[in-house]
Amino acid sequence: MTRLFNDPADFADEALAGFVAAHRRWVRPVTGGVVRAAGTPAGQVAVVIGGGSGHYPAFSGLVGAGLAHGAAVGNVFASPSAQQIRGVAKAAHGGAGVLLMYGNYAGDVLHFGQAADRLNAEGVPTATFAVTDDISSAPADQAAKRRGIAGDLPVFKAAAAAAEAGQPLAEVARIAAHANARTRSFGIAFSGCTLPGADEPLFTVPAGRMAVGLGIHGEPGIGEAVLPTADEAAELLVAGLLKELPDGVTAPAGNRAAVILNGLGSVKYEELFVVYRRVAELLQEAGVTVVEPEVGELVTSFDMAGVSLTLTWLDAQLEPLWTAPADTPALRKGAVAPAAAGTAAAAPESTPETEDDALPQGTAASRETAVTAAAALRAVAATVAEHAEELGRIDAVAGDGDHGIGMLRGATAADAAARDAAERGAGAGTVLHRAADAWADRAGGTSGALWGTILHAVGDALGDEERPTAATVAAGVTRAGEEVRRVGGARVGDKTMVDVLVPFADTLAAATGAGDRLAAAWDRAAGAAGEAAAATADLLPQMGRARPHAEKSLGTPDAGAHSLALIVRAVHGVLSDTTEEH
Amino acid sequence: MTRLFNDPADFADEALAGFVAAHRRWVRPVTGGVVRAAGTPAGQVAVVIGGGSGHYPAFSGLVGAGLAHGAAVGNVFASPSAQQIRGVAKAAHGGAGVLLMYGNYAGDVLHFGQAADRLNAEGVPTATFAVTDDISSAPADQAAKRRGIAGDLPVFKAAAAAAEAGQPLAEVARIAAHANARTRSFGIAFSGCTLPGADEPLFTVPAGRMAVGLGIHGEPGIGEAVLPTADEAAELLVAGLLKELPDGVTAPAGNRAAVILNGLGSVKYEELFVVYRRVAELLQEAGVTVVEPEVGELVTSFDMAGVSLTLTWLDAQLEPLWTAPADTPALRKGAVAPAAAGTAAAAPESTPETEDDALPQGTAASRETAVTAAAALRAVAATVAEHAEELGRIDAVAGDGDHGIGMLRGATAADAAARDAAERGAGAGTVLHRAADAWADRAGGTSGALWGTILHAVGDALGDEERPTAATVAAGVTRAGEEVRRVGGARVGDKTMVDVLVPFADTLAAATGAGDRLAAAWDRAAGAAGEAAAATADLLPQMGRARPHAEKSLGTPDAGAHSLALIVRAVHGVLSDTTEEH
Repeated sequence: MTRLFNDPADFADEALAGFVAAHRRWVRPVTGGVVRAAGTPAGQVAVVIGGGSGHYPAFSGLVGAGLAHGAAVGNVFASPSAQQIRGVAKAAHGGAGVLLMYGNYAGDVLHFGQAADRLNAEGVPTATFAVTDDISSAPADQAAKRRGIAGDLPVFKAAAAAAEAGQPLAEVARIAAHANARTRSFGIAFSGCTLPGADEPLFTVPAGRMAVGLGIHGEPGIGEAVLPTADEAAELLVAGLLKELPDGVTAPAGNRAAVILNGLGSVKYEELFVVYRRVAELLQEAGVTVVEPEVGELVTSFDMAGVSLTLTWLDAQLEPLWTAPADTPALRKGAVAPAAAGTAAAAPESTPETEDDALPQGTAASRETAVTAAAALRAVAATVAEHAEELGRIDAVAGDGDHGIGMLRGATAADAAARDAAERGAGAGTVLHRAADAWADRAGGTSGALWGTILHAVGDALGDEERPTAATVAAGVTRAGEEVRRVGGARVGDKTMVDVLVPFADTLAAATGAGDRLAAAWDRAAGAAGEAAAATADLLPQMGRARPHAEKSLGTPDAGAHSLALIVRAVHGVLSDTTEEH
Repeated sequence: MTRLFNDPADFADEALAGFVAAHRRWVRPVTGGVVRAAGTPAGQVAVVIGGGSGHYPAFSGLVGAGLAHGAAVGNVFASPSAQQIRGVAKAAHGGAGVLLMYGNYAGDVLHFGQAADRLNAEGVPTATFAVTDDISSAPADQAAKRRGIAGDLPVFKAAAAAAEAGQPLAEVARIAAHANARTRSFGIAFSGCTLPGADEPLFTVPAGRMAVGLGIHGEPGIGEAVLPTADEAAELLVAGLLKELPDGVTAPAGNRAAVILNGLGSVKYEELFVVYRRVAELLQEAGVTVVEPEVGELVTSFDMAGVSLTLTWLDAQLEPLWTAPADTPALRKGAVAPAAAGTAAAAPESTPETEDDALPQGTAASRETAVTAAAALRAVAATVAEHAEELGRIDAVAGDGDHGIGMLRGATAADAAARDAAERGAGAGTVLHRAADAWADRAGGTSGALWGTILHAVGDALGDEERPTAATVAAGVTRAGEEVRRVGGARVGDKTMVDVLVPFADTLAAATGAGDRLAAAWDRAAGAAGEAAAATADLLPQMGRARPHAEKSLGTPDAGAHSLALIVRAVHGVLSDTTEEH
């Protein structure tokens, strides 16, 4: 378990500060993460990687010559926010564009995608690439849905080495895709990690058993089996990877492969070596030539006990990229000359510019509404704080257990930003926009992106001029539902917050359309939301999303759906108190 | 816990094989461990380090340019044998002598000392140095009794960098002593490791508590306290080290130090960084300049949850040795040019010569005794096998829990060697000598060295000529008791095997002197041995040797004493069956 921490909410920030203090030769801190201490050589494409904290050396430990130019570092198991990613990308940009690289998780896809949109709009040519190496997370014909695990490393490295060799952005992105297409990983786990401040592990595996195919946050695997010997574990992993060869590799024999045997946290080096001994034998028997293997902790999950095997099937293009020199805190290969002063692009003296702080002022009518909006966000923060632990527990059944802490950070930041803006004379629209940005930036993760989207849509509807009618509010909520479906890609029935947001919006629109006052309509809509949230529990086990060993999975609702229902109920209290006159 | 293994008895060998398979660029295997793949540059002093397995990257992971020239690798938590150390040293020798370096533990001191004696006798100039950095293991005025923990690394590195710079053996040894005198470590632990095949951790710490000053095998610490926050842990560790400055450092302010924050196994990198953040602040506040810190897993103890802080107070001589380039599997610093072919001493084509296998033949009389001796060793192996698990359990109370596995490996090897020698016509003396060498070589650890000594002394007494009398056997046993005390340094009353061996020898001598036949005398002596072994239990808790949390410590005998009593009882069965006629 994780034992050494101060305030759990500060864990990721403090870990990053300590990492930087210990590695000043390689990295320097910027808003949102780190970049190479020597900067990006002028004219070189910058490869910016990132993801949640808790996976060290992914992602900050892989920044340095020959590998990443920067890393955006999110909270524990939560994607960095688009704003963080943008900050790191701008600091790393060497004038030749940026490739954003990350594992294929919903939150990362959302935030890196939003960051790329903003960077491109700001004139920084930016492409994105999500690694999908984990064969257990989706069948081969749906490879694009797969998660990224330890295969992150060889795919990042191929792209970064191509950038280092002077390739343009389009070619660096093409090489990332090529390396990813030839990279496969397969893992097993024996116990889950315990996050900072948590009393229990994120998941458990019965003694003497192993979970096959588990993800790096403990996402469900594809089965369970008896705890193997080290040799049996090696045989399982090698057989799994040799069964699914990539296009262009017709048989293992005669091929060359980069091999990574990765420890997830508390599987120790000696154990990895015992397993690797047999992995090397099996690959040799299959006729595969191993090229510069890596055996160690490369993509971890706190103290999770597990191990994964990654093969990157090399070709004439990929092999020199894999063996090219690299000099990072966690991975060094070959001989790397220290970066000569002057070859690097001028390192920005300060962190990237923050948003212009000139605050648009609202009309008197909108400022009155803004006070209600700020009160609503205060109520949201209070109810999230009250239920944070419960939300984490619920999320641990089918997610990675970070929903409570992410919501708490987001709601708290939104509350502060809303109050600040309201006190300084902003209208309701601006208050909600500021709250939206604060929530997304501070929370990270999928829920941070979606709550930023919701608050932004409602803020657009309210504006900074008029006193909104009940219909205006209902239209904003309907628009929020549309945006969340567009951005998140979920539909009604997928057992996500969309299952709650859509009936909430529909009921609110119907009631206000029928002439109800806002508070009464909201009350009815909140009731519909509560029923819809409870209904997300019904089919979870059948859908295979629940963890194999979670006793409480039957009847546990989706965490995002549940928190949305709690929040709309809390907001109703504010509406009843203050806006009966609307 | 350690989960991935095959036969636990093969764990250390298989881990070494896998380590070598993954790191052929740096190391190649030789009898007893590994040496640099590129060999030792001709004319350079070879620094050969070593110790038990289970501490990766100590010791094999620290072999490479700028650091060790070779590593002798023992069993799990057991010293390598003198024969293993000699094998590695001969393979690493570059013509300018060898410095053997290890942590200050009884088994290592014994085996490395014996290896040095043999190497010097064979014309390889050899010195030894034991690292003593752990301030919790003895007070400052008894610094020579202290254990070696993570301070191994800076002391090894200082000596190795001096060797790399062309210094002669005496100067390399002097620098080792100088670096050790300026190196201090202090650690805390939260849970013990579980060895391969064991069901329970070696020790436990109550939930919410920490053990202060625990060793890397779970040796007792100096106290227990409430589980600290990360900042409190940093404050405790820094304060402990700033309290005991080495000679020549009058105050922290204005000094420069190499800093190592070491994770023992399942404390993860993120946690180490959170602690290091505060360590760096505290050292800065104290006016200490940190030079090239290392934060990570450098000397581990399987999955033990613990952390230690090491400071090496640098001076003009030590700082360039600390910052000098190094290129090993686990530690890389600066830029290291690949070793050019031809600069290295010719790498031996084969592992070092094995013992001359010409077997001295015994007389008919001695060959008859040899059959009895071999039968006795068979009985010893059987009784050790029967009790191995119990011996491990007993040893876990006051030792490191490896007594059972070490005894089993030693006794099994001695049985095979004795039978082989007896079948090929050796006399009793040679049979016992071969068994002695096999036991010491295969078992390693303290018990391996002492059982080798016992069998050697008895073999000397029996010789290859005469049929021994009871008095001859008794004299051999008496001599064995003297040798064990000389080699091991323990006295009667220290609660070790000496407490059993001396009364056993005395009773045997008295009974045979009074005219008893051997079997009868042995029976009486074995009875005395059993009583003496039980008595070693009496004072353990009061002596402070028992682990703080071992519930079974009260009344648990010393493992080495207990196994000796079991063995002499088993041998009596053989004497009764076959030597009544003596």
